[in-house]
Order: sequence, then structure tokens, then C-alpha cells
Amino acid sequence: MKKLIIATQNKNKFQEIKVLLAPLNIQCLSLNDLNWKEEIIEDGFSFFENALKKAKTIAKFYNLPTLGDDSGLVVEALPNLLGVKSKRFSSEGTMKANNEKLLKHLKNITNRKAYFISEIVLYYPNDKYYHYIGKVFGEIAYDYKGKNGFGYDPLFIVKDINKRMAELNEEEKNKISHRGKALKKLIEDIKNEVVII
Amino acid sequence: MKKLIIATQNKNKFQEIKVLLAPLNIQCLSLNDLNWKEEIIEDGFSFFENALKKAKTIAKFYNLPTLGDDSGLVVEALPNLLGVKSKRFSSEGTMKANNEKLLKHLKNITNRKAYFISEIVLYYPNDKYYHYIGKVFGEIAYDYKGKNGFGYDPLFIVKDINKRMAELNEEEKNKISHRGKALKKLIEDIKNEVVII
Repeated sequence: MKKLIIATQNKNKFQEIKVLLAPLNIQCLSLNDLNWKEEIIEDGFSFFENALKKAKTIAKFYNLPTLGDDSGLVVEALPNLLGVKSKRFSSEGTMKANNEKLLKHLKNITNRKAYFISEIVLYYPNDKYYHYIGKVFGEIAYDYKGKNGFGYDPLFIVKDINKRMAELNEEEKNKISHRGKALKKLIEDIKNEVVII
Repeated sequence: MKKLIIATQNKNKFQEIKVLLAPLNIQCLSLNDLNWKEEIIEDGFSFFENALKKAKTIAKFYNLPTLGDDSGLVVEALPNLLGVKSKRFSSEGTMKANNEKLLKHLKNITNRKAYFISEIVLYYPNDKYYHYIGKVFGEIAYDYKGKNGFGYDPLFIVKDINKRMAELNEEEKNKISHRGKALKKLIEDIKNEVVII
């Protein structure tokens, strides 16, 4: 069976990606499976740069095709906050502290428009790579709802669906989420032999 | 109306792309419209490199988002011929001479498997870019059929459809062609605001 590394130490993210790639009959390995211990510093100015750095570092080290993902929340009214720094928005960096800081920053702001974005890079040891992007649009709520997902999911009202991202179950989320959409494009390309693993 | 340059001097290619982008309400400009006279040498080792070079050169010169396309025919039994050199396969470089040379090279070869590939780069003056790939699989026939299209279309039997690419009309071709598929992905991304022009 062909092997693909998912360059993440985040178990939630690995689980999401693994489920989405299940139909492809590819063995997915996480950095935890490989016992990779170092941190890959996400110091890029764009999601793409970070995804590329993660995927390239690991693909070169293990000599296997590797998928890197970088994602985050972009809030229209706070153009210089969040984005590539979404995970490190608060000094604590926890989900709770990040969400509370976001609510505080938006306290007197009525423009709550936001989107989640995921940029995915599939990198090969020979330096060829493919790049995919997915977005989901919505608004930042004034309170929390829902127990699923992670990150900013309990604050994010998904456009058209009018539910929090955290209210969706895994299957519902994968259908409409930023990461689900980006991965769907990659999966289509693999199925159509546009991309070979 | 937003403007997009299609970095090609090939009128057939421009026409194909213009038709596909029509639903987007974007003004497409060809290099002929802009009176660009220089040749952009396609000396890349991959379709991607050539598409990038064309799109970047023009985007930087005119300070407008620019679409570059490089495409060609890949024949399984002739791995070192055609490909990025598809257009310059014969010394004459005409459609007729190219097709005849291909038939000659495949004379005693029963493996006729081939695919057309199109790689598209949308390049912005600020050096951001997006990359899309489309493929259509098929076989190389032993004789010519069909009067539409251009290039190797009269020799290419489209898989599942069992017709020559040159037997399809513009609409039929755009639905299944390599370029049509790559552009469809770009158009979806523009419609979904994943890509902004």
C-alpha cells in the first residue's frame, strides 16, 4: 500500500485528514506515528509558505510524499490579527484563550465577517509539489455554541447553514469545511490520475 | 470590468480559454490585443515552468493578473519525445508535420496510450500565483479523423468517448479536454472566492 505522511502533530487535524483520504486506499502516517519530535517553526508570511515548509521538511527527511496543511481564521475587521497567527493569537495559545481574545477584540465591532482558509501542499522528495486551497465563509458570533471540532469552531457561524462549525458532526463538517474542500480537490486529482502518489 | 491577460499568441487557444471564462464577467485580453510582439521562449523542463514563465513575464510587464497555459501530449511509449516539446516535435513545427512524425514513431508500436495535459498558472503582479492541472486520457490512432480543434486532435482517441478530439465540437471538447478541466477548477475557485481577480 502506498504511504503518505501527514505533516502534523495535531491529532484532531490528522484524524480529519485521515477520514477524508480513507477512500483512496493510501496508508496515512502522522508525525506521531513516525516519532518525529522536533517543532517545525511556522514563520511564513502566508499559509502557503507554512504548508510548504512543513511538507518539504518531512518529505525530504523521510523520502516519502508528504501533505502539509496550514490553516487559520481571517476576520475582515481585524486584518492584521489572526491569519497565519490564528493558533498563537493569545499568549496562552489555548483554544479557550484564543476564543476569548477574539470576542474581546470584536466587542464593539458589528462587521463580524470571517472565513476559515486551509492551504494544502503535497510535496514529493524530488521537489515536485501540488497546492490546494479551500475556504469557508461565515461570521463570528457573540457567544459559544457546539461541542465538536476545535479551534474557533464554537464561535464560527457557517454561512448558508447558520450553525456553528462546532455544532456539525465530523461528516457534516468535512463536507463544507475549508480543509474538507481543499482535500476534496486533491482527492479528485488523485482519482483522475492528475496527481500520482 | 476586471481585466485578465491570457498570455498566448495562439488564436485557437485564446478562443478556447475566452469561451470557458465567459461566465465570469471578466475582460480577457490576448497578447495580440496588447500588441505584444516578443517571443517568450518556452525552455522549461516542465509544463508548469513554461506556464509560470509566460504568466509571470506578462503579469510583471503589464501589471495585471495573467493566465499562462502550457500544454502538450504525453505518449507512454515515447517518454522522451513530445511532452513540453509537443509543439516543436517536427522540425517544421506544423500540425501536419508533427502528426506525421508521431505516426511514424509509433509505426510498429502497439502501446498507443497517451494523455493531453494542460498546466495553468494565474500570476499576479505581486508574485502570488495559483496553479491548476487538467488531463485527458486516450490513445493515438493509426489514421486521421475529424476537422475541429488543432494540434494532435485528429489522432487522439478520447477514452470512454471513443471519438477523436478533432470530432468534438467546441462545447463537447471544453467539457472533457485537459485545458477545459484545468480551467474549470480555476473558474470554481473564482466563483467560490478562493481566488480573487
